[in-house]
Amino acid sequence: MHARCVGLEAPFSSTLTLAPAGLGVFDVALSSEWAVGGGRLHGGWLLALVTKAGLAALRPAGADPLAVSAEFVRAPVEGPAEVRTEVVKTGRTVSVVRADLYQDGRLAVSATISAGRLPVGEREWAELPALDAAPPPHAPSTARGPEPLPPLAHACELVIDPATSGYLRGERGAPLIRGWARPRGEDPNVLFALMAGDLLPPVVFRVGRIGWSPTVQLTALLRRRPAPGWLRLESVSRTIAGGWFDEDCTVVDSSGRLVCQARQLALVARRG
Amino acid sequence: MHARCVGLEAPFSSTLTLAPAGLGVFDVALSSEWAVGGGRLHGGWLLALVTKAGLAALRPAGADPLAVSAEFVRAPVEGPAEVRTEVVKTGRTVSVVRADLYQDGRLAVSATISAGRLPVGEREWAELPALDAAPPPHAPSTARGPEPLPPLAHACELVIDPATSGYLRGERGAPLIRGWARPRGEDPNVLFALMAGDLLPPVVFRVGRIGWSPTVQLTALLRRRPAPGWLRLESVSRTIAGGWFDEDCTVVDSSGRLVCQARQLALVARRG
Repeated sequence: MHARCVGLEAPFSSTLTLAPAGLGVFDVALSSEWAVGGGRLHGGWLLALVTKAGLAALRPAGADPLAVSAEFVRAPVEGPAEVRTEVVKTGRTVSVVRADLYQDGRLAVSATISAGRLPVGEREWAELPALDAAPPPHAPSTARGPEPLPPLAHACELVIDPATSGYLRGERGAPLIRGWARPRGEDPNVLFALMAGDLLPPVVFRVGRIGWSPTVQLTALLRRRPAPGWLRLESVSRTIAGGWFDEDCTVVDSSGRLVCQARQLALVARRG
Repeated sequence: MHARCVGLEAPFSSTLTLAPAGLGVFDVALSSEWAVGGGRLHGGWLLALVTKAGLAALRPAGADPLAVSAEFVRAPVEGPAEVRTEVVKTGRTVSVVRADLYQDGRLAVSATISAGRLPVGEREWAELPALDAAPPPHAPSTARGPEPLPPLAHACELVIDPATSGYLRGERGAPLIRGWARPRGEDPNVLFALMAGDLLPPVVFRVGRIGWSPTVQLTALLRRRPAPGWLRLESVSRTIAGGWFDEDCTVVDSSGRLVCQARQLALVARRG
């Protein structure tokens, strides 16, 4: 696994590769760099991939994603797939494009992207979680995990706040996880900020529900292009009930500005 | 306007009327009961209408909405329209259906509904805003507004928490609005809970940006069928920047349980 990464200078961006394959259709490779166990692909990475395809279908080119809403219909596996896009609206302030990921002819992820121009000026108002600008030196990090590193650790660095990492030792607490993330070999861009909204471990790990917690629906609002440096992440849940939980991840960049808000509805892992 | 309401025993549910008009297509009437100024229709009501149509297209019948995600592409006006549905997936735990509202052949609202069974048992975890179970007696209410009552006030009662209603007197504060809502003549159901996620005035009214604040994208998670009685609402914004704001409304029922979480990306009203 590791050998495949050697030579990749920007293993996040370089895995988001689109090969035009017809009008609004792109061939894509679901990369083992972004496998997260059981052959499944990382949901946030899939979201970044379909969003890149959707934006590529819009004219004029160069629009930013403002909102990305996705239903995870079936879990795709490593290998070839295609994204079929359809422009729903071309507008002056907002354009809307659908981008559906198919594998073996079956729908895996259906996303709708509202695109336009992200703000660049100062904000009128902000009330954000208080998160340290960078991780403490000895926090649990994908950069210092057990060897061999999980595939994802080759593409980005993710550090969990020690104050919220008790689940790694079997401790339980409120469903809140904080951390920091940055891509390897490049600065974070808006697609990395989008992916970061689904990068922390499922927040239900904190209440002892460890395991595969499939996302059913995720909507991310993008608010600004991230500044270079660490992204700060905080995930919380309002309610866990009847096998369902919400997870709301706030992503703040190194300048302290909101870059992504991602809320998902997901299924709690079954009790082992 | 008032005369049209006489005799309607449940003016919320009775305006959500679907007339089958072909395979997966429903004729609907965009009702003046739900006009909110300038001939525009209430966004939350449109969401409830398309969701009802999407659910009606699913077999077996009787599924609950779990997540509703919608792009507001064009503002429709009072009059006839149609909802075209397409079942994307039929699953044991989750089915997915698209429901698009067209008027005069043009797409107005595109919604995707993830449907299944809402939980009925006890929750494992909840951390919700502290909101009083019912409004205080003298709070600003649509039931005691100026005559003639706005159309919406005939269909439901909405009370604004006096602690967050300073914008009515031109005062400014943090972008936070609380209130209570209930339909007239019936108990709240899950579609009313969905609509309630977009029922408070735009939260940017608190920072002095009063006016039409069009929703671009809204995703609501439904978490439980509401108990009879008042729904408690709280809307907050994380960031207002570059003409855009997020608004996150939490809807809690009379038993204190989370019933809806609705987050939208919207455009700030232009400075008058």
